[in-house]
Amino acid sequence: MKQLRAAVLRPEELPTKWYNIQPDLPEPLPPPRGDAQLKSLPDLMIGECLKQEFSTERWIDIPYELQQIYIQAGRPRPLYRALNLEKALGTPARMYYKSEFYSPTGSHKVNTALAQCFYAREAGFERLTTETGAGQWGTALSYGCALMGLKCTVYWVRAVYRWKHERRNLMQMYGSEVFASPSNKTEAGKVLCSKDPEHPGSLAIAISEGLEAARGDKKVAYSLGSVLNHVLMHQTIIGLETQKQFEMFGDYPDMVISCLGGGSNFGGFAIPFLGDVLTKKKKIKFIAAQSQAAPNLQGEYRYDYADHAEITPELKMYTLGHKTDFPPIKGDGLRYHGCSPIISLLRDKGYIDTIAYPADEKHVFERTREFLRAEGFLPAPESAYSVACAIDEAMKCRASGEEKCIAFNISGHGFLDIIGYSAVLGLTMD
Amino acid sequence: MKQLRAAVLRPEELPTKWYNIQPDLPEPLPPPRGDAQLKSLPDLMIGECLKQEFSTERWIDIPYELQQIYIQAGRPRPLYRALNLEKALGTPARMYYKSEFYSPTGSHKVNTALAQCFYAREAGFERLTTETGAGQWGTALSYGCALMGLKCTVYWVRAVYRWKHERRNLMQMYGSEVFASPSNKTEAGKVLCSKDPEHPGSLAIAISEGLEAARGDKKVAYSLGSVLNHVLMHQTIIGLETQKQFEMFGDYPDMVISCLGGGSNFGGFAIPFLGDVLTKKKKIKFIAAQSQAAPNLQGEYRYDYADHAEITPELKMYTLGHKTDFPPIKGDGLRYHGCSPIISLLRDKGYIDTIAYPADEKHVFERTREFLRAEGFLPAPESAYSVACAIDEAMKCRASGEEKCIAFNISGHGFLDIIGYSAVLGLTMD
Repeated sequence: MKQLRAAVLRPEELPTKWYNIQPDLPEPLPPPRGDAQLKSLPDLMIGECLKQEFSTERWIDIPYELQQIYIQAGRPRPLYRALNLEKALGTPARMYYKSEFYSPTGSHKVNTALAQCFYAREAGFERLTTETGAGQWGTALSYGCALMGLKCTVYWVRAVYRWKHERRNLMQMYGSEVFASPSNKTEAGKVLCSKDPEHPGSLAIAISEGLEAARGDKKVAYSLGSVLNHVLMHQTIIGLETQKQFEMFGDYPDMVISCLGGGSNFGGFAIPFLGDVLTKKKKIKFIAAQSQAAPNLQGEYRYDYADHAEITPELKMYTLGHKTDFPPIKGDGLRYHGCSPIISLLRDKGYIDTIAYPADEKHVFERTREFLRAEGFLPAPESAYSVACAIDEAMKCRASGEEKCIAFNISGHGFLDIIGYSAVLGLTMD
Repeated sequence: MKQLRAAVLRPEELPTKWYNIQPDLPEPLPPPRGDAQLKSLPDLMIGECLKQEFSTERWIDIPYELQQIYIQAGRPRPLYRALNLEKALGTPARMYYKSEFYSPTGSHKVNTALAQCFYAREAGFERLTTETGAGQWGTALSYGCALMGLKCTVYWVRAVYRWKHERRNLMQMYGSEVFASPSNKTEAGKVLCSKDPEHPGSLAIAISEGLEAARGDKKVAYSLGSVLNHVLMHQTIIGLETQKQFEMFGDYPDMVISCLGGGSNFGGFAIPFLGDVLTKKKKIKFIAAQSQAAPNLQGEYRYDYADHAEITPELKMYTLGHKTDFPPIKGDGLRYHGCSPIISLLRDKGYIDTIAYPADEKHVFERTREFLRAEGFLPAPESAYSVACAIDEAMKCRASGEEKCIAFNISGHGFLDIIGYSAVLGLTMD
């Protein structure tokens, strides 16, 4: 029997607008809090991004030039039916995965990096500063800056900076300067370094440094890779493409699954489908796959800072506390104290389920090896949580006999993270 | 002005036949030589591949199931117009690159790996043995075997095996066993190991070991990743897609460029265009980009063995001698003594030019960094030669004002080879 394995959109079928879910939310998003911090934002951020952050327009045009750059970055990306995997699992479920791993830098982060760099260049900025945890965001912004002719400074959580030499060199090849965080380049960093010169850092600390480095220089803006509304909106291109592709398959998901750290890939994939649930009465189960090392969706829903030094306004979000230290895991990108306000609100209203996998990552990486052997692609360690959750749900279908349609996002590839897989799966590294 | 940046074929537009150039060659391909070796081939090789090796049919059907697996592996792959790069170079040339880097294992090698594994499974084999140099081929065959439910044994040139731990672990995650070559697993290996237990190895030695390991066991076949006619034929899917994509662009190449080691990616990309030259009187300049470390197209055109231990028949090819040692380079895949007989014949008849770049790889990698910053993609060290050659030709166009159309193939990505770039470009690796 002929079964479609891939839905491929041509460049001219690229969505031309992002979807802003704010007007469709069940209640208005609680506004950020903190007068001094809010006042400092126009000095720190790219104007167009700040405008988008608070926009209540449902659809926001993607500038034509940016559409062209998305195309050059490989968008639209295919949606695959996981026929081999279904067969290997013996599940009656229909499984579909979105291929964000087909990205120049290896992850979905390019979708907002290119948008932010585009607006920064249009606004006349010369440099962007940022933080990075796993390194995917720092690489994506380095790439975006290279393409747009901007300079780029990356503050990278020291514990990760130390061992991911190759990703660091890739950022440098793009032309970026990269510092281990906390660094001696900022006041926020100096305070921590004076106590411990080898401080392992955290994403919240690196955000503080990125923000501080952008303060007071009109040619420099700060760029964030997750959490914020405009970031998730840029990422909706993932889900919007996926919706068109499900039409090509003649199918529609019962479940939408992705991993969640700050919320950008989960949001980008799920928000258009959440829109269907909110406005078209569709029924979909959404699952955010997390690590027990930092299960922020199991934290408190309250106001908290996005960074360690309290430079950001307070956001209403699910949080584990902005001063919390988290144990290291290979899926570094999932190690952040708070979750995007949009996702947090929808979680609070009961639209989003969550699962947190043990921090030893054995189950997650073993499931991902099954996926690798059946479908051939090596997901990033973060994306492995998405894969494991999808396989676990498909196995439940095998037990129950339910023919569910499961959609999951593979937010990046793992070519630069094999050492992490090797450690957990016990492969020799001599 | 609106300019097309990418030509994307849908899965249903995948070519359904490979192109076998043998009937269109200016004269018949000189047959392989060596009675004993030729007699052993049916015991070593997959029957269908052996049949294809000597076929004079112009078009060979790609089995429907294999077409589906190609689609699942991301075929057809986009052809990009390098508009950013053209602008950065200030060249009047139109530059186009084929994106074989969008591959599950990172290179074009999957095109023949999947075909060979498919035919091996159909013929009832349980295991494939092979050699690998840079590691791209070993990874691709590991992947193909995993998808087809076959076991896989890889003999990997020790000098490379030693430092590419991550790629080795990836092969292992696919389920393969991987040995440093020369090994103590074969007679050919033992002889060399007894003289030097840490013998650095060569591709010709690893081929000998792979062949020997397949000898005498009816459930085991040997699989080669380059040089042979059927391998290049499987790779013609690259050029056949590219031809369709040039029609979408409304353009046609004046120059076709790719790197060349054994000849599989160069052949796969160029052969359909060479067919146009031979049968349709098209005029195209073909350039094979090589390293001065192993410029086999500058060797002698004569009969030589494909392996070190002389288990293969002798092939008429451009060769530097099958016992030759070559200095190490980062583009390991270009370090082989001989060139595919088909490409060698066409080179001998004057259809193919060649350039060999200095073995320090500085120029090649610096050119590739220019490409990275303009277009965003990191090519494999081998593909870097293709990129450098294309840029060099585009710069000649800038000097002369000629508006040439330059097509080049990027046979793989460099995510697993950043350490090589760092060493040559002088990036810190602490």
